[in-house]
Amino acid sequence: MSLARVQHVSVSLDGFATGEGLSLEAPFGHAGERLHEWVFATRWGRAMLRQPGGTSGVDDALLRLFAPGIGAEIMGAGKFGYPGWHDEPEWKGWWGPNPPFHTPVFVLTHRPRPSIEMEGGTTFHFIDASPAEALATAREAAGGQDVRLGGGPTMIRDFLAAGLVDHMHIVVVPILLGRGVRLWDGLEGLEKDYEVETVSTPSGVTHVTFSRAGL
Amino acid sequence: MSLARVQHVSVSLDGFATGEGLSLEAPFGHAGERLHEWVFATRWGRAMLRQPGGTSGVDDALLRLFAPGIGAEIMGAGKFGYPGWHDEPEWKGWWGPNPPFHTPVFVLTHRPRPSIEMEGGTTFHFIDASPAEALATAREAAGGQDVRLGGGPTMIRDFLAAGLVDHMHIVVVPILLGRGVRLWDGLEGLEKDYEVETVSTPSGVTHVTFSRAGL
Repeated sequence: MSLARVQHVSVSLDGFATGEGLSLEAPFGHAGERLHEWVFATRWGRAMLRQPGGTSGVDDALLRLFAPGIGAEIMGAGKFGYPGWHDEPEWKGWWGPNPPFHTPVFVLTHRPRPSIEMEGGTTFHFIDASPAEALATAREAAGGQDVRLGGGPTMIRDFLAAGLVDHMHIVVVPILLGRGVRLWDGLEGLEKDYEVETVSTPSGVTHVTFSRAGL
Repeated sequence: MSLARVQHVSVSLDGFATGEGLSLEAPFGHAGERLHEWVFATRWGRAMLRQPGGTSGVDDALLRLFAPGIGAEIMGAGKFGYPGWHDEPEWKGWWGPNPPFHTPVFVLTHRPRPSIEMEGGTTFHFIDASPAEALATAREAAGGQDVRLGGGPTMIRDFLAAGLVDHMHIVVVPILLGRGVRLWDGLEGLEKDYEVETVSTPSGVTHVTFSRAGL
């Protein structure tokens, strides 16, 4: 069965998954890298930066769920680029010539453009679709594997509200951002549809995993 | 030194410390008892209900910090009673004739009334004061011991914003209330003034303690 999975989305203690003032220079706005310091302390995170070392405990293990079994990703327009990327025909995402996805990636946008084939197996497709339509499209491209719901927070909220998320890994970072984009708005009672597990780790973050009962 | 301490305030994963629709019948509104089930699973919580049993692990240990070393409490008007208690001259709080405070308790209100002496050492005083003034008053009454900042969330937010909190124990419960009174609004960067420790326990909650550096 092909699951729809949200992988390691970091939120502040006050619920913001990204800061305010997003730009080309500040992809997470005033949050900077504070939501993701725990990632770059792990071996998996260091490898992303082509650096040695890092921890190999629970934080690292959960990060390593990122790629296995995933056949496609769906991401929101706000993850693909800074505000204004729609007006930049040459924009190809934040990730350089060989993005870390290595699968088809469906970018949700009201202004689709031609697909972009990158190195390493990533192809960006741009679609104007509802969450359910996008998931059906991505599932077909995933060839029986799972679909990653890549964020940002607005897109994840939309998929949660539509009841389309099977597994979700949220990481609560003990900082207060005060402003930005909230992950949790309008999701009263969400936990009823899931088995929820909460585990804090020595890095100070808390991993909250939501698994849809029976899947 | 007399510290100002916030003891075991429970918040939902989306940051609400109480629900919507507070009333005499529903002190926490639509949240019901869901924010406090973890309390009543402990020996300390069961004893509050005059019941035997309960867990004696980390949840219980942290709850047992409630009384020792505390010489007075400050609470908001919204904790002392349901919306409308100001118009009820006989209202003496939720806790029956022998409230669990056993110290002077200063209720912040714009409509003070005469003090009420209860059984067991609790006296309710009603004061119209700023956070700093209230803390000075409570410290004097506490005779060198610590002052508990008893909530609700609005009152705690006011004391945090005024920089008056020395120690705070917040308990994140993995439910999404969706609506109610938020604890964290407007507190960007709060963590910079504190050492923050995060520990989840088998009950599923996460204890986040804030300790002011150097105290």
